[in-house]
Amino acid sequence: MPREITAFSNPLVKRVRSLREKRHRREEGLFLAEGLRILAEAEEVGILPLYLFFAADSAEHPLVRRLVAAVENSGGEAIQTSRDILHKLSGKDNPQTVIGVYRQFDTALSRIDRSAADIWIVAQSLRDPGNLGTILRTGDAVGAGGLILVDDCVDPFSVEAVRATMGALFTQKIAAARWPEFLSWLRSGPGQLVGTSLKATHDYRAPRYETPTFILVGNEAQGLPAEYEAECDLLVKMPMLGRADSLNAAVATSVMAYEVLNQRRPL
Amino acid sequence: MPREITAFSNPLVKRVRSLREKRHRREEGLFLAEGLRILAEAEEVGILPLYLFFAADSAEHPLVRRLVAAVENSGGEAIQTSRDILHKLSGKDNPQTVIGVYRQFDTALSRIDRSAADIWIVAQSLRDPGNLGTILRTGDAVGAGGLILVDDCVDPFSVEAVRATMGALFTQKIAAARWPEFLSWLRSGPGQLVGTSLKATHDYRAPRYETPTFILVGNEAQGLPAEYEAECDLLVKMPMLGRADSLNAAVATSVMAYEVLNQRRPL
Repeated sequence: MPREITAFSNPLVKRVRSLREKRHRREEGLFLAEGLRILAEAEEVGILPLYLFFAADSAEHPLVRRLVAAVENSGGEAIQTSRDILHKLSGKDNPQTVIGVYRQFDTALSRIDRSAADIWIVAQSLRDPGNLGTILRTGDAVGAGGLILVDDCVDPFSVEAVRATMGALFTQKIAAARWPEFLSWLRSGPGQLVGTSLKATHDYRAPRYETPTFILVGNEAQGLPAEYEAECDLLVKMPMLGRADSLNAAVATSVMAYEVLNQRRPL
Repeated sequence: MPREITAFSNPLVKRVRSLREKRHRREEGLFLAEGLRILAEAEEVGILPLYLFFAADSAEHPLVRRLVAAVENSGGEAIQTSRDILHKLSGKDNPQTVIGVYRQFDTALSRIDRSAADIWIVAQSLRDPGNLGTILRTGDAVGAGGLILVDDCVDPFSVEAVRATMGALFTQKIAAARWPEFLSWLRSGPGQLVGTSLKATHDYRAPRYETPTFILVGNEAQGLPAEYEAECDLLVKMPMLGRADSLNAAVATSVMAYEVLNQRRPL
């Protein structure tokens, strides 16, 4: 039976609310995901929240009932609450009907099995949570294995990033590493590191990409550092016909990722 | 000679600050753009602000001096001010060194000359300013003519949208119309309307696109209404190998736009 929480002063409400801050997420090793669609997506791949908050007026929704049962069966806790408390937890004016508190995934690079997919995306110092989420979503769509975050990237477990993934956070692998560690791991096995760069001479459609392809994208404002570009097996560029000299980072990554995918599928 | 404003209570400061709200932007027919890069981009294509605010400590920067001279020559006003006031105007913790107040462009559909470009992007009920800006930026890159906003889209002159365009707002045409008006304009001349849709049977790389191609993208959450899809000359889809059923709207638009461009350029 779900317990009910109606008091803003409830310690669990305060604790969950604090997960909107990175420091608390890190200390607790937890993160928040909101919305029936994302939570149902997670459940379908076998990932359940430790705590499930749901709006009392949504208790009879079939997906909510299914989630509540699954969470309780797995030893988690389902908590019926008010829209006001969901608003407090999510920080949004129109909160979703469900919010889940999940354990953060292990982001050690050693957990990545590169043979599991033909495409991997590597982002260096990516700062925008929307871009991070959008890239994970594209990764899911192109059949990538996951996203490797190099250097100081935005927290993939931030509420904004999780929201932008639309659920792909639960289906794509995530790893985080500093550049030297990533490079040494990369060179310990097969894989072509392809950077997108303004300095490139190759059009992105010209090379035949090798498997697995590691698509490397740089920081939104700075692009890739020169010494990182120097480590790439290949630098490619997209045609830029206008006045701008760069695309949005998630767009550039996605256009590249679809090209790599297209080379490997029959039309 | 630039005048100097140091008082928060200055009426022009208050007026400019109010342009962060859509209602005031509409009443005044003005909008804000921030940052040397974007303002210099605008100047290069001959668009100057009516008012140019710049930080006193940036007055000797060559680009700032050039902008100040250009604004004053054109009859606009250059105003030297403090970082604190720039912060107040922009709402950002780290404000840019320059903020320009521009006259909104005429967004009448009749101002669009479709023969000016081979690609046009049409967005229906697009709600996210970041997506709108990102799409304009991609439009610039693929040599599109501009963006036609159909139905209730986010304001292209919002501070967030302008920021996300990275200057492409000044190089791409913008129009706004309701669907029936757009459709009647579209059918009054040449052009193929191509929608991206989950219901499509054509892979997006299969058709040879006709010129000009109008790429139609739907609302972030809902996609295109069925009756809008029915009006398309062609519905296409991108392969989706994962669990998600859609891409970010700006990503889908960009992947499509590069495909249309790629069909028309030698590798």
